[in-house]
Amino acid sequence: MALVARDMNGVNSVILERMQSKVALIPELAGHLIAGGGKRMRPMLTLACANLLGYPGTRHHKLAAAVEFIHTATLLHDDVVDGSGMRRGKRTANLIWGNPASVLVGDFLFSRAFELMVEDGSLKVLRILSHASAVIAEGEVEQLTAQRQIGTGEEQYLDIIGAKTAALFAAACRVAPVVAEASEDIELALESYGKNLGIAFQLTDDVIDYASDSATMGKGVGDDFRDGKMTLPVILAYARGTAADRRFWEEAIGGDRISDDDLARAVSLVRSTGALADAIAHARQYGRRAIDALAAFPVSKAKSALTEAVEFAVSRAY
Amino acid sequence: MALVARDMNGVNSVILERMQSKVALIPELAGHLIAGGGKRMRPMLTLACANLLGYPGTRHHKLAAAVEFIHTATLLHDDVVDGSGMRRGKRTANLIWGNPASVLVGDFLFSRAFELMVEDGSLKVLRILSHASAVIAEGEVEQLTAQRQIGTGEEQYLDIIGAKTAALFAAACRVAPVVAEASEDIELALESYGKNLGIAFQLTDDVIDYASDSATMGKGVGDDFRDGKMTLPVILAYARGTAADRRFWEEAIGGDRISDDDLARAVSLVRSTGALADAIAHARQYGRRAIDALAAFPVSKAKSALTEAVEFAVSRAY
Repeated sequence: MALVARDMNGVNSVILERMQSKVALIPELAGHLIAGGGKRMRPMLTLACANLLGYPGTRHHKLAAAVEFIHTATLLHDDVVDGSGMRRGKRTANLIWGNPASVLVGDFLFSRAFELMVEDGSLKVLRILSHASAVIAEGEVEQLTAQRQIGTGEEQYLDIIGAKTAALFAAACRVAPVVAEASEDIELALESYGKNLGIAFQLTDDVIDYASDSATMGKGVGDDFRDGKMTLPVILAYARGTAADRRFWEEAIGGDRISDDDLARAVSLVRSTGALADAIAHARQYGRRAIDALAAFPVSKAKSALTEAVEFAVSRAY
Repeated sequence: MALVARDMNGVNSVILERMQSKVALIPELAGHLIAGGGKRMRPMLTLACANLLGYPGTRHHKLAAAVEFIHTATLLHDDVVDGSGMRRGKRTANLIWGNPASVLVGDFLFSRAFELMVEDGSLKVLRILSHASAVIAEGEVEQLTAQRQIGTGEEQYLDIIGAKTAALFAAACRVAPVVAEASEDIELALESYGKNLGIAFQLTDDVIDYASDSATMGKGVGDDFRDGKMTLPVILAYARGTAADRRFWEEAIGGDRISDDDLARAVSLVRSTGALADAIAHARQYGRRAIDALAAFPVSKAKSALTEAVEFAVSRAY
């Protein structure tokens, strides 16, 4: 964060300026989420990657803001889809202003993101980010169809989080070498860094939902459980469970056993089967791949920061 | 339609090809709306405007498909926002597959629209359509904030329909001269045609909601009334009403008087005050402006078709 503080001020200026509208509800609702404790993880990646490449300009400020707008639009729609009530320790926008407002302000931010990219004027950047957006939406729909489906396997899970989460991390990283006019190799390396970091990040998030005694980032603990989301801890615990445990998971994921006692049993099972520990090990493995993708870059503050970002992403589960 | 039949086949091919996804729910849900009796009004405008300019290529097929995707995404989200159950005489997607699926498939189509535009590669087209998308979303949010607000006036109403409906009509028309590399004057003329046609179209739609004995396009009659939408028939009838009528409108728009009897009284009031007739007259007036915007173009089949489109848009209220 310290490394890119000055650039982040530039990004924040773009964000604040471009979320304005004569329709007062738009900045009000968007501001609740954007100003409200977000980590700016994705724009920070764009900035840190640009720093890594010694890019001296400011073009990436608009693009980093666009990435954050896409992310915010996704969060607004996610909370509607999941009927969530808490995010980042605050009441969700859909709870305060209702689902219709969240859907429509999300659409606005998404459109505004494209306007920002078009203003930048790079067709290559537009290609990367419009494709990422389609992949994200596709992943969100796939997640929806997998919800409450106990038969969902690890491959499909990885496919879903690769799309819904890692695609935007990858795109956020890849736009930096594009504006810095770096080589294709560098583009691919940073895309790989972002992709693997994104998977590690989501795996960790999904572990946190069952690690009730750890930092929970303000999300309600057990949300995934009650929503019947087939995350890796569940997939592994189900695969390894006794007949009785498997019946429990079938009923729980089906939505018929979601009391606090059921959640406590689920937490106990994901621990005792080693599912949670292995999900964390997977996250660390993807984190290692992310760091390996940076191998060709010489030592620099930016490289250290990108390495620390991986550590931050995977250590949240403790 | 006959004029652009061959081009429309090209557009339909793009639409069918690009709404596909390995996630089966996406083409299933999107196809329900896209294949299901839509008039393809907006892509037809792109095609007819290109025909008017003698454009010989096929670049506009992708762009017309993108316009239809943006429109379809908007419809999916609109039906979620309004909790609608019927559209084009069929059950709505949100009723069949639920709100979450409609929100997310809408997001996918919206992203896919941008991918299509990026593939075309014209930054000018991207600027026009990304701006139109932001304006549409802004208009939708403004409409939401005006809902159940009896104080909403004619100016704000025109602002809302100019944004939520006419902006996409205008953009659909304007992209044609851009791909045909016509002059700025021609761009502005066709944009003006589309904008005014769009306003005429929406005014007529809003009249139809109170003209229960006329063609209703498969929408539920009285939907706007029950949703507390401040459309022009209500705005005029309220302004011209007696004290008792005004109290009725206040309660009805507030959501406290929305029975079938109340709807019958509303229909009677919008007729007796002349509100409906004047809203139709307004629609005709905007239709005339649309036709006037075509004045500089020489006589051609395309010009006749664009003129007939105006007649079609405003005559639906009878």
